[in-house]
Amino acid sequence: MKESWSSVDTLETNFRPLVVIELAKGTKEETIEWFTKRIVDKKANGGAQLLIKPLVTENGNENIYLVGASHLRLLLGAENVGLVKECNDNSMRAFTYSSRKTFKDFADDNQNFLTMSECQYIIKHELDNLRAKDEKMIPGYPQAKLYPGKSIVRRLLTNGILVQIFPLHDREELKKLRHTWYGQVKIGYQPLDEIRCYFGETIALYFGFLEYFTFALIPMAVIGIPYYVFAWEDYDKYVMFATFNLLWSTVILEVWKRICAVMTYRWGTLLMKRQFEEPRPGFHGVLGINPVTGREEPVYSSIKRQLRIYLVSVPFVCLCLYFSLYVMMIYFDLEQWALDYHEENKSHFSSLMLYVPSIIYAVVIEIMNRIYRYAAEFLTSWENHRLESSYQNHLILKVLVFNFLNCFASLFYIAFVLFDMKLLRQSLATLLITSQILNQFAESLLPYWLQKRHMKKMKERMHSLKMDTDLSLVEQVNSEKEMGTYLGTFDDYLELFLQFGYVSLFSCVYPLAAVFAVLNNITEIYSDALKMCRVYKRPFAEPTANIGVWQLAFETMSVISVVTNCILIGMSPQVNALFPDSKMDLILTVALVEHLLLAIKFVMAFVIPDKPRDIQIKLAKLEFESLEALKQQIIAEIPQEESLSLKRNTRMKMLLEMIWAGQEANETCG
Amino acid sequence: MKESWSSVDTLETNFRPLVVIELAKGTKEETIEWFTKRIVDKKANGGAQLLIKPLVTENGNENIYLVGASHLRLLLGAENVGLVKECNDNSMRAFTYSSRKTFKDFADDNQNFLTMSECQYIIKHELDNLRAKDEKMIPGYPQAKLYPGKSIVRRLLTNGILVQIFPLHDREELKKLRHTWYGQVKIGYQPLDEIRCYFGETIALYFGFLEYFTFALIPMAVIGIPYYVFAWEDYDKYVMFATFNLLWSTVILEVWKRICAVMTYRWGTLLMKRQFEEPRPGFHGVLGINPVTGREEPVYSSIKRQLRIYLVSVPFVCLCLYFSLYVMMIYFDLEQWALDYHEENKSHFSSLMLYVPSIIYAVVIEIMNRIYRYAAEFLTSWENHRLESSYQNHLILKVLVFNFLNCFASLFYIAFVLFDMKLLRQSLATLLITSQILNQFAESLLPYWLQKRHMKKMKERMHSLKMDTDLSLVEQVNSEKEMGTYLGTFDDYLELFLQFGYVSLFSCVYPLAAVFAVLNNITEIYSDALKMCRVYKRPFAEPTANIGVWQLAFETMSVISVVTNCILIGMSPQVNALFPDSKMDLILTVALVEHLLLAIKFVMAFVIPDKPRDIQIKLAKLEFESLEALKQQIIAEIPQEESLSLKRNTRMKMLLEMIWAGQEANETCG
Repeated sequence: MKESWSSVDTLETNFRPLVVIELAKGTKEETIEWFTKRIVDKKANGGAQLLIKPLVTENGNENIYLVGASHLRLLLGAENVGLVKECNDNSMRAFTYSSRKTFKDFADDNQNFLTMSECQYIIKHELDNLRAKDEKMIPGYPQAKLYPGKSIVRRLLTNGILVQIFPLHDREELKKLRHTWYGQVKIGYQPLDEIRCYFGETIALYFGFLEYFTFALIPMAVIGIPYYVFAWEDYDKYVMFATFNLLWSTVILEVWKRICAVMTYRWGTLLMKRQFEEPRPGFHGVLGINPVTGREEPVYSSIKRQLRIYLVSVPFVCLCLYFSLYVMMIYFDLEQWALDYHEENKSHFSSLMLYVPSIIYAVVIEIMNRIYRYAAEFLTSWENHRLESSYQNHLILKVLVFNFLNCFASLFYIAFVLFDMKLLRQSLATLLITSQILNQFAESLLPYWLQKRHMKKMKERMHSLKMDTDLSLVEQVNSEKEMGTYLGTFDDYLELFLQFGYVSLFSCVYPLAAVFAVLNNITEIYSDALKMCRVYKRPFAEPTANIGVWQLAFETMSVISVVTNCILIGMSPQVNALFPDSKMDLILTVALVEHLLLAIKFVMAFVIPDKPRDIQIKLAKLEFESLEALKQQIIAEIPQEESLSLKRNTRMKMLLEMIWAGQEANETCG
Repeated sequence: MKESWSSVDTLETNFRPLVVIELAKGTKEETIEWFTKRIVDKKANGGAQLLIKPLVTENGNENIYLVGASHLRLLLGAENVGLVKECNDNSMRAFTYSSRKTFKDFADDNQNFLTMSECQYIIKHELDNLRAKDEKMIPGYPQAKLYPGKSIVRRLLTNGILVQIFPLHDREELKKLRHTWYGQVKIGYQPLDEIRCYFGETIALYFGFLEYFTFALIPMAVIGIPYYVFAWEDYDKYVMFATFNLLWSTVILEVWKRICAVMTYRWGTLLMKRQFEEPRPGFHGVLGINPVTGREEPVYSSIKRQLRIYLVSVPFVCLCLYFSLYVMMIYFDLEQWALDYHEENKSHFSSLMLYVPSIIYAVVIEIMNRIYRYAAEFLTSWENHRLESSYQNHLILKVLVFNFLNCFASLFYIAFVLFDMKLLRQSLATLLITSQILNQFAESLLPYWLQKRHMKKMKERMHSLKMDTDLSLVEQVNSEKEMGTYLGTFDDYLELFLQFGYVSLFSCVYPLAAVFAVLNNITEIYSDALKMCRVYKRPFAEPTANIGVWQLAFETMSVISVVTNCILIGMSPQVNALFPDSKMDLILTVALVEHLLLAIKFVMAFVIPDKPRDIQIKLAKLEFESLEALKQQIIAEIPQEESLSLKRNTRMKMLLEMIWAGQEANETCG
């Protein structure tokens, strides 16, 4: 890797560029000077104590800067962000500089102790925590107000002076990763540990979940095939399949928590202390005193936010949901109208007209989803959440509810209002397969084509520069800064969530759904991998210990699926035939079975421990050690403290001696 | 208080007896000598460094010892157990000896900084943690095996050498507490803070819950009265009442969590770190290495325990439940038989015979409950749980399930199999009122009578000793050691839990239930207070942050009550009249409403935060401070560490200087 940079790194042999900062063209000199000074300034002076270097291209300085840090600085930063690494005794511990020798693979000259993505995360953290001291504004930009403690980088970003900050790819590592990940045709697990090293925990966890979910669906798919092939629709086989599916979906979600704990323990994020969350960039308010930190910062009344949420956002979402249902009803009317028209005319044109409503509806749904997404982002931003996590949770909730209704409302309507099982099966198959094909196209074929075009352009450019050996750093930065920004795992999880809905909500009507889901997910892994490695800028690593709100979303879906499946089974003619005399008995039986299944689900979720036993033991061991250390500290710190106070207070000493009957008072607890 | 002891405390004026240790009569001299030596021995030598004094009575030494500790020792112990106290700035922090000056009301000569119950808790903790070093057995008792790290007190207790350890009452304080608690006839809150100071958090939390629960039931009671008086049985009023009850029961349980958080924050237990739990006294196994502590101690395979639970305990509990149902069926047969007999004969004798089945059933239920309790304790003990908390959870679960079925099975049978609403209302009223009267008698009248008798005996005895001014310490210890031991809040919570079941499960059939519950709880407060202050030994304080598994039990009950109430409403003739044509529509509507209510319940439980905002802020502030302190520590500790390493490694120093371009390397991050 060093070789590829050697052509540029002539002056400082040890400067390793990690992060790129792009300032707006025409940024004032005094601003640049001030900003770079703050970045290199000593910690004690309120700087970040990092290294910075302008990137000099053939066109001269383009306001692009490379940021790096000394090895020592990175180690101290690792302690600061609370990084957890493996020790020599194979246990995981929070890294501290003073105990550095006890960590596995640590050596003063081992630059690879911290992975590149960890280094980049540390630099990002340090840059984000570069705070204004007594500056009232950003020098050169009087409209960009500052107050003590305000993150400088965030203010620069919101004012457009800072265009972007992104971490550099490591071309050697990426090549290796690509090869093991999707470069060879093989059946096997993904290299999750390598993905985590390169892209960080959040993305590795997404791929881990995708892989786990695919494997977990295989039993459902395998059991589903004979039901489809032999058309087993007897009562007992039917119920067995649905019951298996319901319990299985509970089991896989519980087991995922355990697998997730094993992975994140190995990666250190399970033990990582949550950092104190800073306000998100878009947060605004009048300057006040934060009750938690005691710092001066914008504050915004929580009551106002609650009012905005409950008086504006909630009604708006409800209205959108109502509108979506209204559109669905229009679709069914159109469908009916097209059917009637076809019945009357029976022409070629009329049979083509049969497809028109579905197509219009599909397009409208897509448009509604997109408009709603913007509206949801606008509203959630307007709610003015202080924390990014709270913003994300509110956004995810809004989008989830709407997408759920938009995707499944027509199926619910067909199933529980029209009672048309044939149409349900047909619609389900159409929706599932169409959405998968569309997604595969948007995520796999399109990027592949873009990739090809990109490579071609790059090659032409390289040819013009007459450098056909290796890409220089300048080339790398210039090509990477043009790449798209990966906006997080939200859309990927949403896709899986909707897929889980298709598979579980109506599983007993269409047993093949799981088969299609498995096939889709296998290609999904490859297309997502391609997307991460080739299409987007490298994202900053984001330590995380679980998949967060998605766990809850999947669990809620599996609870809803118990209800829908029980109703579907109750509606099937086979089950109806069992209760020829009384519909009432049928409904009561179905309700009873449903309640039993729900009870079993909750008991199972309660009984299966969230962490495997060995992880529990390791965590308990760590807790025990810290308690023991605390006790030792108490015992160690007291005698000194005490003897001092005793010297000051002879009366008390005499008193103590009297009480302790001959014991030496100044050795208490020693 | 000191005055009352002054007659005995002639030698050591500062020895304040806190805890009483009673050894078995005839305990060998060498054992006593060894045990007391270990108690007074220095911490460094593995002792507890407490003070101990034999109690010399008129009959000579009766193997009763008084344990105390110096003020300094108690302060160090407070740090050791992780006690949280209020600081001068009104925030709550873990007490440490070195930061003692920052705590409210702290002064070196203020013996009241720690409450007496805190001191007693500290002493108990220190005694429990008195561990064997290289002793292989208790001196004088070769059968009482020891191994390094085994708690000496627990071994002495299991071998019967130690009869009991209990904390002494503080007669002055108790008198004051009694007066404010139940001494005066007044309407108002209980003195929960004083109760907590005297009895500890677990008991104060029980009384807090009892009081809160009583207040929370008042709206239900108030709304229930007109329903009973005016016999409102129209559909809409009925449904409104039941819906209110269901939502209200969710709200009160959620609000309790918040109130509980406020209280336990004030008491410091919300912030108290969980101590590492030691094995419970009854735990046995072969000596092995504990994977968590690395210490040699008995280990017992978790698989064996699981086998015992799932292959023996679970089937046994199921069998008991089946047996209970069987007995219930016999009761209904007997009832039918008595009714038939009465129909045939119509004599005085036959009308009396009508009551016989109920009486027999009530007695049998009581007997079954008692036998089952023993069986459950035996089984849970046999399951050989390592931790007291896990033992308690398994015991509570077993007892709860059986008691639930035993108390409510007949009501469920009457409601959902016999469909006899009149009988249900009658049985519910009978069961509720009978159980309340029985409990009041057992908890209030009986203790009061015992109390009177006790006082009379005491007075006679005092008279014979011709000391009618004040009780001496010897008298106090002798009278207290004969008092019953309070076995914990289990039975008190169980009573409340069953009451909550009567009120919520069938609330729409018998709206007066809440009224009776409120009346019962008001007297319950007084009878329980009397029990704590007069009847039982003072219990050791037990820090706790919540009501634990009972929160879950109450929440489960409120979920079950949604189901039962919806079915009852669906069965009512008023609602049936609304669906004259189709039973199916009725059932479907009821099922829909039930699912909606359950969904609302879960959303409410999710939306209402478990902790009020100000507590959240205080907790966040504490977390923020500890993170900041950590950062400061990192910044402070490094320069020294680093300059040392730099001196050792000049090459690295030069390198660093080169990289940091003029910055002084040995001031990194300073």
